[in-house]
Amino acid sequence: MSEEKSVTACLILIGNEILSGRTQDKNLAYIAKGLNELGVQLREVRVIPDIRKTIVDTLNECRAAFDYVFTTGGIGPTHDDITSECVAEAFGVGMYRDPDTVELLTRRTEERGQKMNEARLRMATFPEGSDLLKNEISAAPGYRIENVFVMAGVPRIMQSMFEEAKPHITGGSRMLARGLAVDLGEGNIAEGLALVQARYRDIDIGSYPQMREGGGFRGSIVLRGTDAAVLDRAHAEIMQIMRDLGGNPVEEYPDKAQASAEPES
Amino acid sequence: MSEEKSVTACLILIGNEILSGRTQDKNLAYIAKGLNELGVQLREVRVIPDIRKTIVDTLNECRAAFDYVFTTGGIGPTHDDITSECVAEAFGVGMYRDPDTVELLTRRTEERGQKMNEARLRMATFPEGSDLLKNEISAAPGYRIENVFVMAGVPRIMQSMFEEAKPHITGGSRMLARGLAVDLGEGNIAEGLALVQARYRDIDIGSYPQMREGGGFRGSIVLRGTDAAVLDRAHAEIMQIMRDLGGNPVEEYPDKAQASAEPES
Repeated sequence: MSEEKSVTACLILIGNEILSGRTQDKNLAYIAKGLNELGVQLREVRVIPDIRKTIVDTLNECRAAFDYVFTTGGIGPTHDDITSECVAEAFGVGMYRDPDTVELLTRRTEERGQKMNEARLRMATFPEGSDLLKNEISAAPGYRIENVFVMAGVPRIMQSMFEEAKPHITGGSRMLARGLAVDLGEGNIAEGLALVQARYRDIDIGSYPQMREGGGFRGSIVLRGTDAAVLDRAHAEIMQIMRDLGGNPVEEYPDKAQASAEPES
Repeated sequence: MSEEKSVTACLILIGNEILSGRTQDKNLAYIAKGLNELGVQLREVRVIPDIRKTIVDTLNECRAAFDYVFTTGGIGPTHDDITSECVAEAFGVGMYRDPDTVELLTRRTEERGQKMNEARLRMATFPEGSDLLKNEISAAPGYRIENVFVMAGVPRIMQSMFEEAKPHITGGSRMLARGLAVDLGEGNIAEGLALVQARYRDIDIGSYPQMREGGGFRGSIVLRGTDAAVLDRAHAEIMQIMRDLGGNPVEEYPDKAQASAEPES
């Protein structure tokens, strides 16, 4: 594994319903890919429940350990939306009500023929020191405080906030990827792959077996690194090794292809 | 949030390709639901890369903090499969080669007309003190060591190992769920929900907004707790509150329904 200096991020998914298995997260992959385009590597994800101590402790651990932290979930108007209070507690700051947001949310609420109330005003209340992240979808903003970006859990709203977050993010080198699919078992290719990995210490080579419907394996090999020429050389060597082993390797595009039905995790 | 004594678990998804966004995890929801059927609450999930120090530190932190820990990924034959070495390091034990597994894997390999080799023998090598978890799909076992269950990342293989893990797990009360869908905005229902939550401290009430295709919101409300009668009463109260607010609430079944296209996280 290469460990060159890189810009790192951690994502914290806050919400009981991913942990219960009821909802399938859709935000991880979107944020991972968006960060990579900015030259930031997503290095860890945590899924945690709506429990105050857990949120505060996780925030403090992660904001010290990574260059950037992103959270999703828990910033709506209901009693289980406790993320903002927890962020304030983690940073040791108070909360303030933002007048522009109050005005915006009041106007939007009244346009729908409804009334502003205390619950909705919670969405205009932020930890002191926050920069707000506009939300083009449902108006109530996310925010940045130091290196922590606090976003909604609903994917389309999160995506709008993530666009607003981008100008605040300074990335490093972008990780590039090359890939191939191969019709050989991992046990056959392991030795050759390990030899290539040993020669190319600045790239990461991953092997991802998949099961085919109806039995049988195929594998994806993914090479990641910041130097395109090095990746190209290592990729060509692995393609040749696969052919030498009697396989029929095919180029794959790791950051474009949809994951198949049975991806390795 | 209720904090009664319960049996807890943490899931560690090990693998660079979930963090890159290339593959979508399929194991979290399966394991969450399977654990709940056993009376175990999944309280945290971590997604971490194939980096030795990260894996060792995460294992040690989580096995101390939760009753059970489950890992997926990184137990195959290739150079990036480093989970078992990390487990041994975390527990401060050596590794041993299991003769029965060597025989099993050798027979399976030869049946496919291939040869046993050092890479495949890695899948017969386990931390000392492990109980093996059979794998009906691809033969190479997972294992349990103390309160940590180490499983494959490929979903069908993981599921086979998880079945083998079940007899080793002693759960507590099973969390039951009731739910409803409502056509009212969260800002309208927040006050009523908070009042019900305040009266029923032993259950968790969650509100999950969703965006409809073409605009507009709907919400799911999920009630979880161990006492069916209490859940029934709180559910009836919330249904009535929604009707009083002019809504048209509909019963939902949180642990049966598929998540919709745009779930909240």
